[in-house]
Amino acid sequence: MINVAIMGHGVVGSGVAEILINHNERIAKRIDKQINVKHILDLRDFDVPYSDKFTKDFNDILNDDSVSVVAEVMGGINPAYDFVKACLEAGKSVVTSNKELVAAKGAELIKLANQKGVSFLFEASVGGGIPVLRPMANCLAANEINEIWGILNGTTNYILNKMIVDNMDFDTALKLAQDLGFAERNPAADVEGHDACRKICILAALGFGKHVYPDQVQTEGITNISLDDVEYADGFGAVIKLIGHAKKQENGTIIASVRPTLVSREHILSSVNGVFNCVVVDGDQTGEVAFYGKGAGKEATASAVVADIIDAIRHSGVKKYLNWQDGYEGYVDCFIDEIGKFYITLKGNDYEALKPEFIAAFGDCFESYVFNEYRKEIAILTKELSKSQVKAKLAAMTQLNEYKILHTML
Amino acid sequence: MINVAIMGHGVVGSGVAEILINHNERIAKRIDKQINVKHILDLRDFDVPYSDKFTKDFNDILNDDSVSVVAEVMGGINPAYDFVKACLEAGKSVVTSNKELVAAKGAELIKLANQKGVSFLFEASVGGGIPVLRPMANCLAANEINEIWGILNGTTNYILNKMIVDNMDFDTALKLAQDLGFAERNPAADVEGHDACRKICILAALGFGKHVYPDQVQTEGITNISLDDVEYADGFGAVIKLIGHAKKQENGTIIASVRPTLVSREHILSSVNGVFNCVVVDGDQTGEVAFYGKGAGKEATASAVVADIIDAIRHSGVKKYLNWQDGYEGYVDCFIDEIGKFYITLKGNDYEALKPEFIAAFGDCFESYVFNEYRKEIAILTKELSKSQVKAKLAAMTQLNEYKILHTML
Repeated sequence: MINVAIMGHGVVGSGVAEILINHNERIAKRIDKQINVKHILDLRDFDVPYSDKFTKDFNDILNDDSVSVVAEVMGGINPAYDFVKACLEAGKSVVTSNKELVAAKGAELIKLANQKGVSFLFEASVGGGIPVLRPMANCLAANEINEIWGILNGTTNYILNKMIVDNMDFDTALKLAQDLGFAERNPAADVEGHDACRKICILAALGFGKHVYPDQVQTEGITNISLDDVEYADGFGAVIKLIGHAKKQENGTIIASVRPTLVSREHILSSVNGVFNCVVVDGDQTGEVAFYGKGAGKEATASAVVADIIDAIRHSGVKKYLNWQDGYEGYVDCFIDEIGKFYITLKGNDYEALKPEFIAAFGDCFESYVFNEYRKEIAILTKELSKSQVKAKLAAMTQLNEYKILHTML
Repeated sequence: MINVAIMGHGVVGSGVAEILINHNERIAKRIDKQINVKHILDLRDFDVPYSDKFTKDFNDILNDDSVSVVAEVMGGINPAYDFVKACLEAGKSVVTSNKELVAAKGAELIKLANQKGVSFLFEASVGGGIPVLRPMANCLAANEINEIWGILNGTTNYILNKMIVDNMDFDTALKLAQDLGFAERNPAADVEGHDACRKICILAALGFGKHVYPDQVQTEGITNISLDDVEYADGFGAVIKLIGHAKKQENGTIIASVRPTLVSREHILSSVNGVFNCVVVDGDQTGEVAFYGKGAGKEATASAVVADIIDAIRHSGVKKYLNWQDGYEGYVDCFIDEIGKFYITLKGNDYEALKPEFIAAFGDCFESYVFNEYRKEIAILTKELSKSQVKAKLAAMTQLNEYKILHTML
C-alpha cells in the first residue's frame, strides 16, 4: 500500500482524487500496489464522499512519514513552492501540474529531488493530458533536439479558430470562450501569451538541458489579431496560430518566443483546432514528431498527474530522466536578428501615395501582397529577410504611420 | 560500460550501429554509462569503420555473458524468433523493431522476458521513430483505453496522398513511390494492408491487454481505390486513408480492422500527409490523444531502437510496463454487424433503371449522393446504418451488378 497526499482540491485536484479513489482497483491491477489517498490539503470545505481525508494543515502531510508521494495541484508560486520544497526535503516524491512553479523554479526543484533521491515529475504542466515531456525525455533519448514548436494554450487556439472558421471577431470569440468555460473572467494569462510562455520554458528546458525563465521569452499575445489578418493569412495559404517556439543555435544559445504566427496550411499545426494543443519536436534522428490532444480539462490533466504518481511509485530509486540545469546570463539570445518570411500590414495617411512607396521599398522582396482598397491597407508576405531588413524598409517609407509584423512558419 | 549486440546490419541495423558508435559520448552523458557495441551479427560482409565487430555466428552473442542487451533488427519470423527466445532465456534484454515477430509471438516473448526478469521492448515496431507504445503504456496508465485508430503505413499514405493532392492514379503513384524508395519492388505487404495489420495487432494488444493475431484482423488494402473514389470522398467532406482500427466492446471482446476509410476533413488524421504516420488513442480520461511523425526511415526507426536500448539499461530489474497476455478464441469479434455511415458506389447494366431502384432501396437513409452521368455510377454516403442493413438494401436492387463499400469515420 502506498500512501499519497493531494495538495489542492480545485478542478485538477478533485479530478486526481476521483481517479485515485474511483479507479483504485484498475490502477492497483496495473502496478501491483494499492494507492491510498491519505490526506487532501485545502482550506475550503467540501461535501464529497471522501471528506474524512481533508486537512487544512500542511504539516499533517509533511510530518506523515507514511506518505511517500505528494501531488501539488494548487497552482501559483506561493505557497506551492514552499510546500513542494519542504516535501522534497523530507524525502517525498512530488508530482505537479503547476506550470508557473516549474517554469520559475524547475531547475532548483529538480536538483533538490536528485539530491534527495526522489522524483519530481510534472507531465501535466504542459499539454494537460497529452504525454509529451516523458516521451521527449525518454523515447527521444537518442536524439539531439533542434527545435520545438507548440500550440500550447487551448483558450487562444479556440478563439483564433472561431475567428478563422466562423469569421467571429476577437471580442465575440473571447466572450463565447468565457461563456463556455474555456476562458477565465480575467483572460490576460491566456490571451497575452503568459500561459503558453511558461510551457515553452518547460519544453525548452527539457529539450535543450538548461532552464529558461519566462521573462527571457519574447512573448506576444493575440489581442492585436483582427479578422482582416485572418483573411489575409488565408490568402497567403496560412492560418494564424499562437505558437510557442524554441530553437538551439550553433553557438549554444537558444531563442525562445510565444507569438501569433502564420502557419502553412500544409503543416500539421494548422490542423489543430478548438481547445486542442499540439507540440512538435524536431530531433536530429527522428525528424518532426508531434504530440496532440486536449491541453486542459479536469479529467485529462488529472490523468496526467495520476500517471506521474504511478511513475513515481514504479520507479522509486531509479535515476530521473526529467532533468535540466540552471541557465546562464545570455543563454537565451534576445537580440537575434531573426530571418524568415514576414507578414506585414501597412497603413498610411495617404493610401495612394503609400502604394508606390511600398513597391519602391520592397522591390521584389515579397512572395505576395494585397492592396485592400476598401480598408486602404496593404498586406504583404515577404520573401526570406532578416527582421532588421524589414525594419529598414519600413523606416524608408515616409507615408507609413501604422504597421503590424507577424512571424511565419512558411 | 554496457556491452550490446546488434543482430542484423540492414537499413535499421546499420542506423543503430551508427547512432551508438557516432553519438556514443552524447548517450553516455545522458545515462551515465558508456555503451559498447560488441558484436554485430550479419551473414554479409560490410566495409565500414567498425568491421571488426562483425560475426556470422549467433553463438558469439548468445554465449557472451558480458552482453546484456541485444537489438534484433533482422526482420521476419525466422530465425529472429529463435534468436530472440534464446537471448531472453540466457537472461539478456532484447529490443526489436520487428513488427512481424511481435505481432506473431509478442505474448509469448513478453511472458518469457518477465520470467527471466529482463526487458523485451519494441517501440520501433509501430510508427518508426514516433514514441507511441511507451507513452500509451506509461503516460496513459490512469486511463482505460476505449479505441485506437492509426495511419500506420507510410507507403500507402504516400500513394493515397498523391491520388488526393496530385490527382495521380494508383499505379502511377505506386511507381513513383517505388522510384523514390518509399515502396518495395514487391509492394504487397504495404498496399494490401499486411504491414498496417501487424501494427494494429501490437497497438490493440498493448491498449486492451490481450494478444491479437494478424489473421483475426479484417484486413483490406488500397489497390481497389480509384481516383473517382477520391473525388466522391472529397465531395462528402472526406479523404480516403488506410486506417488501422481497434475498439473495445462492452462484452470484453474487441473488433480490429485495417481498411481504406473515409476520414472527415475535420479530423486530425485527415491532415497526415506523405510518408507520415499517426496513432490516435482514445482514453476514458484524456479523450483523444495523437502521436505523429515519420513512420519509417533509417534514422527515425534506429533512434527508437536506441531509445529502447537506453531504457533497457536504465530500468534493468524494474517491472516491465509493455505487457499483455495471450488472447482466447473469440476474443476478436469477426462477426460483428458494424454500425456507421457507409460510402458506397453502385453500377448496373442499365444506369437509368438503377437510379429509381437506388432511391427506392435507400429511401431517406443517405446523407448525400452523386449521380455520375459520365461514368454511369452512383456514389452514396449513407446515414448511420448497420452493415447488414446496407447489404439488404443492395440485395433488393435487381439492376445492380457492381458495388464497393467503404467504412467511414464521419
